[in-house]
Amino acid sequence: MPQLLSNRPQVTPVEAAVRKTAVIPNRGRLLQTLDQMASIGLQADGSVCRRGFSETDVQGRDQLAAWMKESGMQVRVDTAGNLIGRLEGQDPALPVLMTGSHLDTVPTGGRFDGVLGVLAGLEVARALKDAGLQLRHSFEVVAFADEESTMVGCKGMAGTASAEPTAYATSNGEPIDVNLKRIGGHWPALASACRPDHAVAAFLELHVEQGAVLEHRGDAIGVVEGIVGQRRFSIQVEGQPNHAGTTPMTLRKDALAAASRVVLAVESIAQQHPGDPVATVGRLEVWPNAANVVPGSVSMTVDIRDLSPAVLDQLVSSLEDELERISTATGCPIRLEPQFQVEPTPASAMVMSTIASVATDLGLNWSGLPSRASHDAQEIGRRWPMGMIFVPSRDGLSHSAAEFTSDRQCVDGTAVLLETIQRLDCALT
Amino acid sequence: MPQLLSNRPQVTPVEAAVRKTAVIPNRGRLLQTLDQMASIGLQADGSVCRRGFSETDVQGRDQLAAWMKESGMQVRVDTAGNLIGRLEGQDPALPVLMTGSHLDTVPTGGRFDGVLGVLAGLEVARALKDAGLQLRHSFEVVAFADEESTMVGCKGMAGTASAEPTAYATSNGEPIDVNLKRIGGHWPALASACRPDHAVAAFLELHVEQGAVLEHRGDAIGVVEGIVGQRRFSIQVEGQPNHAGTTPMTLRKDALAAASRVVLAVESIAQQHPGDPVATVGRLEVWPNAANVVPGSVSMTVDIRDLSPAVLDQLVSSLEDELERISTATGCPIRLEPQFQVEPTPASAMVMSTIASVATDLGLNWSGLPSRASHDAQEIGRRWPMGMIFVPSRDGLSHSAAEFTSDRQCVDGTAVLLETIQRLDCALT
Repeated sequence: MPQLLSNRPQVTPVEAAVRKTAVIPNRGRLLQTLDQMASIGLQADGSVCRRGFSETDVQGRDQLAAWMKESGMQVRVDTAGNLIGRLEGQDPALPVLMTGSHLDTVPTGGRFDGVLGVLAGLEVARALKDAGLQLRHSFEVVAFADEESTMVGCKGMAGTASAEPTAYATSNGEPIDVNLKRIGGHWPALASACRPDHAVAAFLELHVEQGAVLEHRGDAIGVVEGIVGQRRFSIQVEGQPNHAGTTPMTLRKDALAAASRVVLAVESIAQQHPGDPVATVGRLEVWPNAANVVPGSVSMTVDIRDLSPAVLDQLVSSLEDELERISTATGCPIRLEPQFQVEPTPASAMVMSTIASVATDLGLNWSGLPSRASHDAQEIGRRWPMGMIFVPSRDGLSHSAAEFTSDRQCVDGTAVLLETIQRLDCALT
Repeated sequence: MPQLLSNRPQVTPVEAAVRKTAVIPNRGRLLQTLDQMASIGLQADGSVCRRGFSETDVQGRDQLAAWMKESGMQVRVDTAGNLIGRLEGQDPALPVLMTGSHLDTVPTGGRFDGVLGVLAGLEVARALKDAGLQLRHSFEVVAFADEESTMVGCKGMAGTASAEPTAYATSNGEPIDVNLKRIGGHWPALASACRPDHAVAAFLELHVEQGAVLEHRGDAIGVVEGIVGQRRFSIQVEGQPNHAGTTPMTLRKDALAAASRVVLAVESIAQQHPGDPVATVGRLEVWPNAANVVPGSVSMTVDIRDLSPAVLDQLVSSLEDELERISTATGCPIRLEPQFQVEPTPASAMVMSTIASVATDLGLNWSGLPSRASHDAQEIGRRWPMGMIFVPSRDGLSHSAAEFTSDRQCVDGTAVLLETIQRLDCALT
């Protein structure tokens, strides 16, 4: 029973490993900072409400700006409303090493979604300052504007933002120019938020998983392989409404029976693919939807996501084949209509391997996985080498008061972020 | 080319056969009477609206009563609101031979549903009077009250009506006592509408099929084998609502995918049964029903109909087995809750065989089939020997302006009714 032979203060293996590195995060400071930010917009049910451009969003950003300044960072807001803290590097000619995420939340959000990545970036800056260490590259921590709704911040910086004001469906319904002004952005000069191609050496985002894969695998760290692309369709199934009593089974064109085959085909094409794509029928409406009427028509949605554009194409093609087969078998015409598509954003192989090495060296179990939710890194990664670090999310819950990532998991993720920044600073030119 | 060698007026084989019988219906009078009744409540779109207890219902009943009196019938309204015309028989000790159906319609009904059976009964009385023929049994033609909603008329006569006023969901929302008073019924004495066991020798109802079986088979006459029983259930499928992007296929409890298996199982248990039961999922609701959320729960209805209580039991048992299997396979709890059940009403073998002989003798193709819709005969048949004569309904459409049965089909059905009444009058004691 060797543990009884020791009376040293308990140190976890991760903490011990972290102590071997040059700079380590300050656990207490990080957790206190997370607590303080969670108090801004805290609701009676324990959820947090800091909608993009709201008064609480402005309060949260002001608090962050104050912390950044205390840490010796230069602070500015770009025209897309991104709040940026900067530590000048040793070599001004080098592009920036950037990290960040968002402070804004859904209406009843959690304490971690977005916030962790921003405050972990702040802790990296603070820890570097504590250690008296100046990186070669300038280091920027960004709180991107309004990630939960318009993503105007990350899109503005990446140059993928629309110039059309009506393209922005803001959560408060106010025009994007009015909203941007409220947080220090400037709509007429939005284009100037777009950074030049050579401006960023790499972008890192630490985020809670918002899924249960890591928890399920028992891993502490997820090395994100990229952010999945999405293909969204609507499907219309046309049958023949008829009396549920007087219409024999052989004379029916039952739109719901045909639609049920479609639901199972959607499930099957994703399950049977050797990768791990997802495909979902989330919405389904029956007409006329009466107990004694054979369903006459069904409208439904299909949402397909994967990291690979080729896999997305394969799945859509398989779906088209299945719809053809089901339509022929049931006599019900079926129409597939595209609603929208989002292209995947692969992570940088070099950034991924650096994160993985760091996790290994810190003694943290890790595995690779795609991010199937959108993040600021999705847009930034379209222009510059991108990597995301996931930490587990209990039961996969997010966007609610029930969202939970433990203190230790937050600190582990921050430690990986800090060490990855330092290694990239050495490796990148 | 034998048809060119003849210059006799064209007589169809059915008309020729009918002319061999003692009494035949008057084709022109029947069709004109149908037209006149269709003009009461006629809507701009060609549909007919005579809701039970409405002003147009009263108009229709008054018109029928006038026609009955002109035909020498004694006319009365019983306490359940049934309008009854009676031709006295030769032998007052014999029970009554009865026919009838209903004059009331759904909100936008057709010209035939219900009406044909009442006016064909009137034509039988008129044709008997024309022929100077008095049956051995007294003959009654009944326009039953409010078939499309409460069925208070046929239930009152059969003694299956509830004594509880709130059990009657009337289409105008007014209390049943107020409604009955408006058409000459009398709620406080409802029980006296119930006829004694020995009162009725047989009941016949001519009705349009409201399905497409006869049209599909190319038959002129359907000999109804009985009115199906019905078992109605609600089904609840419980899954786990989750992010459609971040939840891998293997970690899902997708309530809609499980519910789709239930829809197909319901279809399959009816299709695979050697008889011709029907089973329908007509209503299905998904929660939360959003394109980017794995469905969390589904509620749906199942409606099962067959002539045989044993088959109904078998189907319900098969459904329970399937639900158990699907629940185990998907990890989604599934709950089956009875909503209501209606017991089947078999037709009288003796009445069926008489109808079939008549159709054969009149040269009309006929076949047996169940009635999968409710009719007044469903309640009357619980007490007395019952038979129904179906005539085809184009495309199986009913309860709409598009409902159509040709003049010839109406006359053929009436001829079968008239001859069947005469044969039963000879055969029954």
